[in-house]
Amino acid sequence: MRQKKDYEPKNAISLWRKEGIKKLVVELEKSYETQAGINHVDGLNIPTPESVKEIIDSFFKLIFPGFVGDEPVISPSIEYYAGSIIERLCDRLAEQITRSLRYQCVLDNCEDCDCTWKAEQITEKVLEALPETRRMLKLDVQAAYDGDPAAKSLDEIILCYPFIKAITVHRIAHVLYLEQVPLLPRMMGEWAHSVTGIDIHPGASIGESFFIDHGTGVVIGETTEIGNNVKIYQGVTLGALSFSKDERGRMIRGTKRHPTLMDNVTVYANATILGGKTVIGKNAVIGGSTWITASVEEGTVVSHAKPELLFRKNNE
Amino acid sequence: MRQKKDYEPKNAISLWRKEGIKKLVVELEKSYETQAGINHVDGLNIPTPESVKEIIDSFFKLIFPGFVGDEPVISPSIEYYAGSIIERLCDRLAEQITRSLRYQCVLDNCEDCDCTWKAEQITEKVLEALPETRRMLKLDVQAAYDGDPAAKSLDEIILCYPFIKAITVHRIAHVLYLEQVPLLPRMMGEWAHSVTGIDIHPGASIGESFFIDHGTGVVIGETTEIGNNVKIYQGVTLGALSFSKDERGRMIRGTKRHPTLMDNVTVYANATILGGKTVIGKNAVIGGSTWITASVEEGTVVSHAKPELLFRKNNE
Amino acid sequence: MRQKKDYEPKNAISLWRKEGIKKLVVELEKSYETQAGINHVDGLNIPTPESVKEIIDSFFKLIFPGFVGDEPVISPSIEYYAGSIIERLCDRLAEQITRSLRYQCVLDNCEDCDCTWKAEQITEKVLEALPETRRMLKLDVQAAYDGDPAAKSLDEIILCYPFIKAITVHRIAHVLYLEQVPLLPRMMGEWAHSVTGIDIHPGASIGESFFIDHGTGVVIGETTEIGNNVKIYQGVTLGALSFSKDERGRMIRGTKRHPTLMDNVTVYANATILGGKTVIGKNAVIGGSTWITASVEEGTVVSHAKPELLFRKNNE
Repeated sequence: MRQKKDYEPKNAISLWRKEGIKKLVVELEKSYETQAGINHVDGLNIPTPESVKEIIDSFFKLIFPGFVGDEPVISPSIEYYAGSIIERLCDRLAEQITRSLRYQCVLDNCEDCDCTWKAEQITEKVLEALPETRRMLKLDVQAAYDGDPAAKSLDEIILCYPFIKAITVHRIAHVLYLEQVPLLPRMMGEWAHSVTGIDIHPGASIGESFFIDHGTGVVIGETTEIGNNVKIYQGVTLGALSFSKDERGRMIRGTKRHPTLMDNVTVYANATILGGKTVIGKNAVIGGSTWITASVEEGTVVSHAKPELLFRKNNE
Repeated sequence: MRQKKDYEPKNAISLWRKEGIKKLVVELEKSYETQAGINHVDGLNIPTPESVKEIIDSFFKLIFPGFVGDEPVISPSIEYYAGSIIERLCDRLAEQITRSLRYQCVLDNCEDCDCTWKAEQITEKVLEALPETRRMLKLDVQAAYDGDPAAKSLDEIILCYPFIKAITVHRIAHVLYLEQVPLLPRMMGEWAHSVTGIDIHPGASIGESFFIDHGTGVVIGETTEIGNNVKIYQGVTLGALSFSKDERGRMIRGTKRHPTLMDNVTVYANATILGGKTVIGKNAVIGGSTWITASVEEGTVVSHAKPELLFRKNNE
Repeated sequence: MRQKKDYEPKNAISLWRKEGIKKLVVELEKSYETQAGINHVDGLNIPTPESVKEIIDSFFKLIFPGFVGDEPVISPSIEYYAGSIIERLCDRLAEQITRSLRYQCVLDNCEDCDCTWKAEQITEKVLEALPETRRMLKLDVQAAYDGDPAAKSLDEIILCYPFIKAITVHRIAHVLYLEQVPLLPRMMGEWAHSVTGIDIHPGASIGESFFIDHGTGVVIGETTEIGNNVKIYQGVTLGALSFSKDERGRMIRGTKRHPTLMDNVTVYANATILGGKTVIGKNAVIGGSTWITASVEEGTVVSHAKPELLFRKNNE
């Protein structure tokens, strides 16, 4: 019987460690060539997840000061607080937008545009939109308070509701999407998806006073249009019904594939609404776990016709 | 054709960088005043997400020693291990509870209570509950092992099951909730929601030997009551059916809105059980993807009456 | 009226802080003995979440160079880039596999195996599989591009699709699972589950050109078998129908409990497919939100028979 020793890599060095690793490195180098397309060796500088995270953090500090970070924010120094965050955010954001634009330029063989300059313009646009973004987000926070009896205060909503993270990131990413910035807005949306379980494509157009309760599993597709005062619960999908294909059988990209929700619509948990021609009329209420693939008239309440359940005694 | 240069912020400095940022800072300052309510400039010290995370980490170290952290835990030094974690946890927890209580005091114009002293009392209560919390959690771990044939050992459950993170945080946050601490228990619950996809409101009352398998998308509302030996699967909602409103049309907060599950109930994946008057009787089994808005008698098995599916050949 | 002071732990030190903590430490020590099984005091070195995260990061750097990390990767130094990551990964991976194997050895009272040596062999196997893993993952990335009209490029998929994180971790963890490594592959899978909402058990066998869109809430059980060119949407469960028990009422572990999906199957959002004998035939399409507990023939399209919804005017 051998004694159980602690793990000792030095004694355990096998022939493979000496020769195998060398061989593997060569194999991998070959793989980077033959299986190209999933590596960026000698590639462009593309946006990095770390920068995306830093950019989002800075936006949160500017939009909800005093709610994030360990330091209290006080009015005599608010100018320096906001100013220093904006200065740094400008650099970071402009750099990541530049990377994103240049990435697309190379794909498109575009040679005569100045990505750096364009990125600077877009950065300004996004930052100048901040006061308006704050106005929109305040309405969203209020909608959450009005829509959830479990909410005790506006502050609780900002501190505790995953929806706030998702909608804040979305309202910024959507501006970048409209400016046709590739990669970066999707990366921002996926950061929010990862921490909240709410998957909103930056292309979706979302009106004022929006609210998603709980949120896990919500999917809102690229061409979705949402009016004002819309409320959505966990697990709701606003998705595509089927995909059009061109004469060569390839999917057609860029058409309206996702539904439209008019003002004051409520969609309860786990409902699925599909299709680019599906319009849910004003004030409609879509019941939980329903499956909707056609338009619903204004003011209609849609629910399961009957539970259709089978009850039997256990051990029968 | 211009050459593609690397991003050079220094050369790209536009007029906006010089003048626009100054203007934006002024606009933002104004927005902090006009759009108040979503910033805490000159506000109270509210609990911070970083502290919440640190507090949760410390609880995990005390409850599951040897399962977290890189250092092994050995009996001769266990006193120092536990003692040093508790000392620090006391400070952190008392501080965050104080912040939470004082926040509520100011909202309520309460002037004569001593939040610091109250926070100290609550901190002691939560910490003194730790041995009992460990007893409860051991039963939960065992319930998970008994309930999932894929589980190979108790250790695998502690290391790999998101449910363990969610229920551990819940059992601590629920004590804080019962002591009427605002903000902090909800922030703890949302930390767990973010990493597990399991959304348990700290108000929910949950009996012994509980188990949630997989867990993503589970929602358990504030006034839910759950007995002993209850088992739940992914995507299950224990939610509110509709919200009562007062004579001014505002939602009434604080009533029993969520269902009651008696002992030994099992609820399969994606079932939805709604309403404060809905009681699922002992030993009942609720089938997957069902929609329940009324009470279910003891020992009943509820399932879809028939699949109601349409089968057709592809390309027909 | 007392003045609201900042929190001052020094002044707030109560008797409990002096005596109570000592008593609590003793209580906890007792609890580590009486409630054993949920602590590892004097226990084995088990794998740590931190190491699991580091191992996964290294695999991502090797598989998708240039997509992760802040530094660009260039061909002249690719040998050093890959070599240095592999060297360190070898050590980390071998150590965590050793810990996992030794853990099982002690459980099984196995005394004559050399876990360190075995771990070294398995480490080599996993690393030597890297070029093949990259080949498989390139097909998965392509399947995502072909399957989602919202995808603008292969790079967007690698940078933004949670599915890529989930399938990359799965393809590595599955190799460890086949080598019967306990704990570690499940911990890797749960890391992916936590950041993506996609819960794939490392035991599941998954063919080429797989794609999961959105992903939140997907559960793929241990004994699931999936063919080539299969596409799955958010909220899909491939689960167990019921659990066989032995003559003493304990669940039988290790049988085929989860379904089989043949080549070219598509499963739309929130469908549930259950049972070890359930086989979904080639080219079948399973509609969203369906509930399937029996086999489906080749080329069949399954959908809700009719919407069975009730429409009424609001305020009626």
